[in-house]
Amino acid sequence: MRLNVKAPPAVQADTRQRLLEAAGRVFAEKGYRSTTVREIIRRAGANLAAVNYHFRGKDGLYAAVLEHTYAKALEKHPPEGGVDPRAPAGERLRGFIRSFLERIFDEDVEACYGRLMARELVEPTAALDGVVERIRPLFGRLCAIVKEIVESEASLGQIERSAKSIVGQILFYKHAAPVIQRLEGRRAGPPDIDALARHIADFSVHGLKGPSARARRSR
Amino acid sequence: MRLNVKAPPAVQADTRQRLLEAAGRVFAEKGYRSTTVREIIRRAGANLAAVNYHFRGKDGLYAAVLEHTYAKALEKHPPEGGVDPRAPAGERLRGFIRSFLERIFDEDVEACYGRLMARELVEPTAALDGVVERIRPLFGRLCAIVKEIVESEASLGQIERSAKSIVGQILFYKHAAPVIQRLEGRRAGPPDIDALARHIADFSVHGLKGPSARARRSR
Repeated sequence: MRLNVKAPPAVQADTRQRLLEAAGRVFAEKGYRSTTVREIIRRAGANLAAVNYHFRGKDGLYAAVLEHTYAKALEKHPPEGGVDPRAPAGERLRGFIRSFLERIFDEDVEACYGRLMARELVEPTAALDGVVERIRPLFGRLCAIVKEIVESEASLGQIERSAKSIVGQILFYKHAAPVIQRLEGRRAGPPDIDALARHIADFSVHGLKGPSARARRSR
Repeated sequence: MRLNVKAPPAVQADTRQRLLEAAGRVFAEKGYRSTTVREIIRRAGANLAAVNYHFRGKDGLYAAVLEHTYAKALEKHPPEGGVDPRAPAGERLRGFIRSFLERIFDEDVEACYGRLMARELVEPTAALDGVVERIRPLFGRLCAIVKEIVESEASLGQIERSAKSIVGQILFYKHAAPVIQRLEGRRAGPPDIDALARHIADFSVHGLKGPSARARRSR
């Protein structure tokens, strides 16, 4: 009998998964700094050696949680938002916006990724770098759609500024939710996704003065 | 000789002011929950009785700090942004956006109000209600400008959604600054205010497809 018994691969993968999920909940509740590895391993039913083996410690575990939860959100709500990739750019823009709203309004995603990112944006940690590398291709995809819509001479800087104008409109509903709640007595949620995606796409394509936008608004 | 010596009004006002300023710094650094009144009175050179007299305790002091710093930011960067109130609505929109950007990029404001609000939006306290009552008339002012620009049949809900599309574009540069920093190697700041105010106003009025917006962009 060998003394150095190693867990079989399936058990290892399961431990890794349990650690990721327990860590997601604890980090989201308490923030990176106030979380102890001790509490995570207790909740995951794992031990410190497993954290070090799979993630090389608390920092690595935290970075893995951020990337894992973002990847899961994208898997659940893919960025094309159910729109055919051959559809006109305006429709693809609406699909992109809709899937983004779905991700920020999804309570499972929100309970973990949303709260982690909200904390990251107030007090960034080294782990933000990894998430930004996952955000980068998504931003590129939005810029490509914007470029098709403006059809033109716009510089890369102008296209990127317009893409940021679109992302800003979307994130507002997550970021400013506590203010909206107090201003209007309710905050936006999943039932509003259709109307908001239409509004943001329409506002972005035509602005306040676009004639077709105005016609559509007065319907 | 009377034993019950009360400080003269000028000294009292000075103590109140020192408490507000010290509290602003400590709350911004540590957040509401981790801040102790003991640290604030030490920094302000005041005593607990003064906190209770002027603010009825920690909650009242915190609420007063939030409102005071917001009022100071608005006093320093008034919402018309230097534009004559008789100017066309498009220009007044640009002034509104510019002054908003000035407030979020002002490092004195940011060091206190910006950080306090960022924390409030992640974990709101009872004090947010008071700030929202100061935000409300400002939002109404923006809605009035938007209404003039669309010139039309738009419902109140449509106007408010458009106003939120504008505020979202502005706040993005504050809220997502750590991501922008990593995506582009720099974050926006005071030297960008002119260009950003022009872009956001232009994007909001004409969108991606507005003909005059396109002409302006290709210049």
